[in-house]
Amino acid sequence: MEREGTFTDSNYPVDRIYGGPEDAGQYPYTRGIHPGMYRDRFWTMRQYSGFGDARLTNERFKFMLEKGQTGLSMAFDLPTQIGHDPDSAPAEGEVGKVGVSIASIKDMATAFDGIPLGKVSTSMTINSTASTLLAYYIVVGEAQGYSSSQLRGTTQNDILKEYIARNTYIYPPKPSMRLIGDMIQYCSTDVPRWYPISISGYHMREAGCTATQEVAFTLANAIEYIKTCTDRGLNIDDFAPRLSFFFCCTIEFFEEVAKFRAARRIYAKILKERFGAQKPKSLQLKFHTQTSGESLTAQQPDNNIVRVAIQTMAAVAGGTQSLHTNSRDEALALPTEESAKIALRTQQIVAHESGLTKTVDPLAGSHYMEDLCSRMEEDVWGYLDRIDKMGGSVAAIERGFFQSEIRQNAYRLKKEADAGERILVGVNRYVDPDETQPSLLRIDDSVGEQQREVLAGLRASRDAAGVQSALSALASAADTDANLMPHIIRAARAQATTGEISNTLRGVFGEYTPREVF
Amino acid sequence: MEREGTFTDSNYPVDRIYGGPEDAGQYPYTRGIHPGMYRDRFWTMRQYSGFGDARLTNERFKFMLEKGQTGLSMAFDLPTQIGHDPDSAPAEGEVGKVGVSIASIKDMATAFDGIPLGKVSTSMTINSTASTLLAYYIVVGEAQGYSSSQLRGTTQNDILKEYIARNTYIYPPKPSMRLIGDMIQYCSTDVPRWYPISISGYHMREAGCTATQEVAFTLANAIEYIKTCTDRGLNIDDFAPRLSFFFCCTIEFFEEVAKFRAARRIYAKILKERFGAQKPKSLQLKFHTQTSGESLTAQQPDNNIVRVAIQTMAAVAGGTQSLHTNSRDEALALPTEESAKIALRTQQIVAHESGLTKTVDPLAGSHYMEDLCSRMEEDVWGYLDRIDKMGGSVAAIERGFFQSEIRQNAYRLKKEADAGERILVGVNRYVDPDETQPSLLRIDDSVGEQQREVLAGLRASRDAAGVQSALSALASAADTDANLMPHIIRAARAQATTGEISNTLRGVFGEYTPREVF
Repeated sequence: MEREGTFTDSNYPVDRIYGGPEDAGQYPYTRGIHPGMYRDRFWTMRQYSGFGDARLTNERFKFMLEKGQTGLSMAFDLPTQIGHDPDSAPAEGEVGKVGVSIASIKDMATAFDGIPLGKVSTSMTINSTASTLLAYYIVVGEAQGYSSSQLRGTTQNDILKEYIARNTYIYPPKPSMRLIGDMIQYCSTDVPRWYPISISGYHMREAGCTATQEVAFTLANAIEYIKTCTDRGLNIDDFAPRLSFFFCCTIEFFEEVAKFRAARRIYAKILKERFGAQKPKSLQLKFHTQTSGESLTAQQPDNNIVRVAIQTMAAVAGGTQSLHTNSRDEALALPTEESAKIALRTQQIVAHESGLTKTVDPLAGSHYMEDLCSRMEEDVWGYLDRIDKMGGSVAAIERGFFQSEIRQNAYRLKKEADAGERILVGVNRYVDPDETQPSLLRIDDSVGEQQREVLAGLRASRDAAGVQSALSALASAADTDANLMPHIIRAARAQATTGEISNTLRGVFGEYTPREVF
Repeated sequence: MEREGTFTDSNYPVDRIYGGPEDAGQYPYTRGIHPGMYRDRFWTMRQYSGFGDARLTNERFKFMLEKGQTGLSMAFDLPTQIGHDPDSAPAEGEVGKVGVSIASIKDMATAFDGIPLGKVSTSMTINSTASTLLAYYIVVGEAQGYSSSQLRGTTQNDILKEYIARNTYIYPPKPSMRLIGDMIQYCSTDVPRWYPISISGYHMREAGCTATQEVAFTLANAIEYIKTCTDRGLNIDDFAPRLSFFFCCTIEFFEEVAKFRAARRIYAKILKERFGAQKPKSLQLKFHTQTSGESLTAQQPDNNIVRVAIQTMAAVAGGTQSLHTNSRDEALALPTEESAKIALRTQQIVAHESGLTKTVDPLAGSHYMEDLCSRMEEDVWGYLDRIDKMGGSVAAIERGFFQSEIRQNAYRLKKEADAGERILVGVNRYVDPDETQPSLLRIDDSVGEQQREVLAGLRASRDAAGVQSALSALASAADTDANLMPHIIRAARAQATTGEISNTLRGVFGEYTPREVF
């Protein structure tokens, strides 16, 4: 171990853990899922990136790896996320804008050109079309010479929070949950190092819920996914170790640390007591964290470096497994290279210089933090009881419960900011009338043009009959209880597009129309 | 009270204090000197600034006040600090470089033009010439219509640490200590809201000592100053409430918080048990903090924004009364306006957005932090015993004890950095070979030219006989036990220069030559 891991700056030796009786690496994992936490290994520094086309994204991936990033995280554009090809009407004006356009296996191959899939770990923020994108990744891996059992990474694949807050759903809940069950089951045998789902509180928090609601609603959704799998007859300890989570980290330092600790111990109790899980890995809440985009300001963007530094400290003191730190300009546009680098450097400074990583769970015992942690735990259990009584997450979503809770709290936050009770530096206090705008990265419509050309080339060169046959087989299978993953992989290999695969399933499953909630 | 002070972001009510039995605002003040700490009032945001001539400094002062700074802090150039006029040989090439040149009362008046001295609080980083600069300030205050009893601020005036680490001494220890005693005594009656001394660990820490040594050596010096005053027959409770302190805050988060808490309780015990102080205000360690300049890097200067944010959190969690946050470019040059603004915004974000200010001493109870705090306290007492046995600070300085302790630790730090055991992001890891330099603020030699012209004008226009008579009276008084402050004020009012006043005292006191230490 390096010396920095065990001595303070002033040369005091630092123990692995202080206080007791709970230990890290032991049930209920309040203090962390590993005994040594960051003394043994830092979290994965995983900056979410992707924009424009696959070539631009490949360049950014390589830039970030060169700067010391330790995991990849892929952002997709809206058409890719909701299963429309770049040359379709719904994609108009959106190609490559908020993430990369991946219309077929060809784009996926370009995005990872020169990046060995057997050696990196890749997270994909993809939900309704997650099985298609994972299929592309598997086939590109094969072409690079790696079997699917060597691939490491995560697909977000959390459709429930899409209905609640994020809105990139395609199909109704029932077939959506079936697709997720198919992926979890398929990965448990064929892609065993993959996390097929990342159950996400992030977007609900960003939509305005409290830290407590973020944990409660996320864990309620987790219960629903677990039930979907156990209802299929899967053994809890066969798939629970590959469930992962994704939380937000705002600037309210102590509350955020308390949140992560409370979430770990509640989850461990649910898995053990409710689902009878036995394996330690089934009981451990493993999570990725992203710093809060909502907390950043378009005004005085350098101030966001400060905010993200504080949030990074909270995520690390809270024991995250993986972290994306937002760039200072994310409230304005896509991050520039320079901004993305500072965000990564923020993680590296907290890891190597702040001393927060020298002992596990360093805030444990803080009277204030522990008090918050207990209060949050109690309130999360209260929410979980209420949601159980409604019949679980899907039922609660259908009656608009989550949505209404989030809306109420978002309204409170907005009211407090408007009244100046919630001070935002540079926004409602310390305003600079004369500030200059930094240079911004924006994607223009030429990317859409290029993507349409690439796609036209693909359609002209591929074996059209092979595509048709793969899509027909997929449609037939969708009408049965068969696992769809092998069919989607076959379609991906035949060079079917993201839009074609999604449209095939639309034909069988239909589309989801949200119920109006008042 | 504003709502933000008492609810978390997720709307949990926050109590004034968590845990017990010690309370903030009560002996031994481990948890803070005020019962409500930042719930009642934030620390003073006091950015150290000053460069070039008085006019440039006046502009920067006004810029920072306009951006929300709540106190002023004045940096002086080397000639002003060691008592040489801009037109003297020792001042060659140094005028206005590391701070503002204040050669006479005329410059002081310009620096505070349009800034009402009865309404601001001003800290001056000035030591050997502190009595002269305070005299200027008093006379400028009078001219603005304020009596000296209305003036608020601090003179650093800590000569012992100059011999140890900072090197802007002029006279030998004995007359230097007499000048300090004169100021403390004079202020206790005539400038009662002024802190005549700020006993400083900052420079020793920056020179390479540990956090523990920083506290121990600073408190050892404090004991020496207190003894100087009690030896004159001053009552401890008449002057101890106006003693203030100045510490460094590095990036080792938990250790720094522990340091501030340990320092408070050790000081309270010293004042109560050793000096028999009775007034609560005598027992309270009140301190200004500056983030560590040594921790900043010339490489990738935006990374320094991250470091300073972490340091700000530590200083605030540690309960500072006043804070200077370094600018990202201070490792390279004087801070630009933009950089100085970001540094101030860092304080404002921690104050208003981080939640750290919502309860007093929020880290209290953290097993790790409390353990560090106890270990440091024990080691500080050990040092104080050793220094007592040597005969106190002056004796310890004369035998080179502090200097040698600092040098040993500085060597350890350097060795660890060279070996890559101490990782510095951007310096010995994550190096960017292609980084571009930011635009820097540098003072060119034309400032020296201008200052020499201003000074020539002053010498030509003032009453030369009045100056001579005031300086002669000062020289005569210096040879007796009389308090020199009234004589220095008379010389300031007669428009004697900083160099003339210092040279007069040099004539009586001689100059200090450090003993070689091996």
